[in-house]
Amino acid sequence: MSIEIFPVQGIPEVAPGDDLGAVILSGLEASDVALIDRDVVVVTHKIVSKAEGRIEAAPDDDAYRRLAEREARAILRRRGDLIIAQTEHGFICANAGVDRSNVPEGQAVLLPADADRSAHHIRVNLERATGASIAVVVTDTFGRPWRRGLVDVAIGVSGLPAILDLRGSPDTHDRTMHVTEIAIVDEIAAAADLAMGKADAIPVAVVRGLDLTGDGRATDLVRPPEEDMFR
Amino acid sequence: MSIEIFPVQGIPEVAPGDDLGAVILSGLEASDVALIDRDVVVVTHKIVSKAEGRIEAAPDDDAYRRLAEREARAILRRRGDLIIAQTEHGFICANAGVDRSNVPEGQAVLLPADADRSAHHIRVNLERATGASIAVVVTDTFGRPWRRGLVDVAIGVSGLPAILDLRGSPDTHDRTMHVTEIAIVDEIAAAADLAMGKADAIPVAVVRGLDLTGDGRATDLVRPPEEDMFR
Repeated sequence: MSIEIFPVQGIPEVAPGDDLGAVILSGLEASDVALIDRDVVVVTHKIVSKAEGRIEAAPDDDAYRRLAEREARAILRRRGDLIIAQTEHGFICANAGVDRSNVPEGQAVLLPADADRSAHHIRVNLERATGASIAVVVTDTFGRPWRRGLVDVAIGVSGLPAILDLRGSPDTHDRTMHVTEIAIVDEIAAAADLAMGKADAIPVAVVRGLDLTGDGRATDLVRPPEEDMFR
Repeated sequence: MSIEIFPVQGIPEVAPGDDLGAVILSGLEASDVALIDRDVVVVTHKIVSKAEGRIEAAPDDDAYRRLAEREARAILRRRGDLIIAQTEHGFICANAGVDRSNVPEGQAVLLPADADRSAHHIRVNLERATGASIAVVVTDTFGRPWRRGLVDVAIGVSGLPAILDLRGSPDTHDRTMHVTEIAIVDEIAAAADLAMGKADAIPVAVVRGLDLTGDGRATDLVRPPEEDMFR
């Protein structure tokens, strides 16, 4: 069974208070993508944050840094202007997820207050409008230790497991697999980014062909400190 | 432009000395996938390592640990049986990439000695046989700090950039984007894994619809120690 990833074009600039479900539906229509059961709608958090009013003034570098510090529950490392921080949700990323790219000059976008809830809200609206049973993933673009370059990861999910637990499944030699928990929503986020393209500003994609249902939360991905050897 | 990911089924068990190009071609034929220009053939390293004879005896836990230590250039952390090590290629991962899953009991598979070269070799063979201009990515499954669950990443590449450098591109508000280097081959590796499925043992997938050419190496992804805040 092959996987298909459709970019959703024609999404307009989003403003605080906008109904994201309606915005995404109009994009789907403009892109000629009709949702079907098991589709996964992947949404970059920036339009979610904007719709939820999570955008603030950051007139200069100092104001931007203070915003990042305010959004941080803990600061792990600091180098020059960059801080690596843990957000209130538990995610660890640059500047606690506060971002100035793709927003008007002098402003910064924060992460959604609860991106799992945001994903659920979008899902309910899209399901109501289309009748299809779908899932929603909200993403952000994170750096990683050890490996250069950024990748998209999941920060919110509804209607999918966050992690696919294959422990106990037999491997190809009929032995029980050991530590095999796949961060499936992070793989979905990365896959969707292939159809989005950073400079093209396509904030939504649909991943079709996965046969997954579940009830995970992106916060399931947060590694408990006692398991984490790299804080 | 949508992205499609085709699983390549019917790949037999691979043994040392096997011609991987021929093995993959027979799988493509069995799966009814004809390669076209710009296709990316994603191959899990395990069949690459097996074909290259990178498999050794590991009769017990002690022998397995010694093998991991031998393959490590540096050991970053150690907890119980698990070591987090840097490989000779520069990648940082569990047990220096030495793995006992999906191999016969009492054996362990090492990483390819040079997975970029392996990718190039497979690419040349597939291009010669099909006439299509393609790219090849060799993957492994890595854990990450801070986030639970494993994801597939690139450890070898041929015919693609490893990193997409969007620095200097205008963002949606016509400002120059700052630090935006996308680890595109890692996103391709993660996307391909969606079509493979761990327990199903599909070791090859084809990603179609990317419009990328380049000449990167997976070792481009290794973050230089002086840039890395988390060793």
